[in-house]
Amino acid sequence: MKELILVKIGGNTIDDPPALARFLDDFARIAGPKILLHGGGKKATALAAQLGVPVHIVQGRRITDAATLDIAVMVYAGLINKNIVAGLQARSCPAVGLCGADAGCITAVKRPVKDVDFGFVGDIVLEKIDKDFFHSLLAQGITPVIAPLTHDGGGQLLNTNADTMASAVAVAMAALYDVRLIYCFEKRGVLRDVNDALSVIPELSAQEYEALKAQGAVSAGMIPKLDNAFSAIRQGVTQVAIGDARYLPAIVAGDTGGATRCV
Amino acid sequence: MKELILVKIGGNTIDDPPALARFLDDFARIAGPKILLHGGGKKATALAAQLGVPVHIVQGRRITDAATLDIAVMVYAGLINKNIVAGLQARSCPAVGLCGADAGCITAVKRPVKDVDFGFVGDIVLEKIDKDFFHSLLAQGITPVIAPLTHDGGGQLLNTNADTMASAVAVAMAALYDVRLIYCFEKRGVLRDVNDALSVIPELSAQEYEALKAQGAVSAGMIPKLDNAFSAIRQGVTQVAIGDARYLPAIVAGDTGGATRCV
Repeated sequence: MKELILVKIGGNTIDDPPALARFLDDFARIAGPKILLHGGGKKATALAAQLGVPVHIVQGRRITDAATLDIAVMVYAGLINKNIVAGLQARSCPAVGLCGADAGCITAVKRPVKDVDFGFVGDIVLEKIDKDFFHSLLAQGITPVIAPLTHDGGGQLLNTNADTMASAVAVAMAALYDVRLIYCFEKRGVLRDVNDALSVIPELSAQEYEALKAQGAVSAGMIPKLDNAFSAIRQGVTQVAIGDARYLPAIVAGDTGGATRCV
Repeated sequence: MKELILVKIGGNTIDDPPALARFLDDFARIAGPKILLHGGGKKATALAAQLGVPVHIVQGRRITDAATLDIAVMVYAGLINKNIVAGLQARSCPAVGLCGADAGCITAVKRPVKDVDFGFVGDIVLEKIDKDFFHSLLAQGITPVIAPLTHDGGGQLLNTNADTMASAVAVAMAALYDVRLIYCFEKRGVLRDVNDALSVIPELSAQEYEALKAQGAVSAGMIPKLDNAFSAIRQGVTQVAIGDARYLPAIVAGDTGGATRCV
C-alpha cells in the first residue's frame, strides 16, 4: 500500500508564528499523500477571556458550553485552519481546510452524561469516518487540514480532542494506506529521564510502555498521547512517532533518535 | 450543459435562526448540482464591538485592518460556514465549507491603494477560479458552501464582497454548466415602486436596467447587486434572479413574479 503521513501539531507550534512558518515549510516538503491535523492552542482561551466567557472546569475536566463551542469553531475551524491552508497554498502545497462536519467526514456522538456533563464534546464514531472522501482529495494531490471539531449528523457541531481525532483518522485511513502518524509536541520524544531533554527513548513497544507506566515512569500528560498511539497501532497504523515539530524532516526520514517511535 | 444553481444568502437570512433553518430545508431540496455562497451578517460587527475593535470607515467605505480580518475569518469561515455545513449534513445534503484559500479555489489581489487603503480586501482574479475543483466536488454529489474570503496565493487571507464573489464563481462555472445565479435579499425583487413591496419587476433586461438607472429609479443599495447580476449575464451566466430567500422554491421553479429575473 502507498504510504500516508498524518501529522498532528499542537499549541506550541500554532501559537508561535515563526515556529509555525518553519513547520509549514517542512510539512509542505513531505512528498506523497499527507494529512495535517491541528489543535487549538491558546487563542481560544484568550478569546474566551476577552469575551468574558468563563472557563468551566468540573472534576478537573473542561466543559464545552454553547459559548465555548462557538469560540472553538471560530478559532479552530476559522482563524487557525484557514491561515494554515493559506500558508500551505503559498508553499505550493494544495490544501483544503476541514472540520468533521465537512462532507460529514468525521461524525461523533455527544458524550453521554455520567458523573460529568462535558457539554458539546464529541466522541468519534470510528466506522463513520469517510476515508473515501479523504482518499479522493489525496488522489487529486490535495492535503486535508483538519480542525478538531466534529458533528453529530443532526446539525450540531462538537468539540473533539485533537490527539484522539488524529489517532482515529489514522486508523480509518489504514484500510487504504500504510499510515505513519506523527504526534508533534514540545519535547523530542518520550523521555527516559524527565529531567534530561535528550534522554529520548528511540523505540517503544506496547509491552515496554505498559511496564514504564506500571513503574510510574511516564508523566501524566504523556499517558493519553501514548494510549492514543498504541491504540492506533493495535488498529492497523504502521508506525506512530512522537517528537518535536522542529525535527519533522528527521522524523519523516526515520532518523534514529529523531523521536520516539511506537511500534 | 447540465444546470447548476448558485444561491447567495446574506445577513437577513443568516442572522435569523428560524429563517436560516427554513432556507436550509429549501436549499437542501434543490435537485442537481448546487453551490451556496453566504455573506457575513451582523455577527462580525457584534464580535468586533465586544472585542473593542473599532470600525474604520474612510470616505464611506469600510476598511479591513488585521484585527477586522481575523474577526471576518472567525465568523464567516468558522462560525457561520461550519454551522451551515452541519445543518446541510443533517438535511441529507452533503456539503463542504470552503473559503477561497481552500485548494486555492478563489485567488484575489489585495486591492491597490489609490485614494483609500481598504486594507485586507481582495479583488477576485476571475481566470484563477478553480472551476475543476468545484466540478470535482459537484460530481461527487457534494455541495460547496463558500464563505466570502479569498487569499492572495502568498499566504494572506483577504476579505471579499459576497455578492461579487457569487457573480465571479457563477461566471467561472458557466464554462462547465448552464448556471442560474439566485441572489437572496430582504425584498421580493427589484421594485418598480420602492414603497410597494409587491411591485416586483418580473423580468429586467440590461437595457431596461440602464434606463431605470438613468431615471434615478433604482435605489443606491440595489445598484452594485444589479451591476453584478448583469456583469454575470454578459459573461455567460444563463439567468440571474434576485428575490427573497423565503420564496426560494418558487424562484428555483421559475414561477412568474417569484423574483426579478435579469436576462
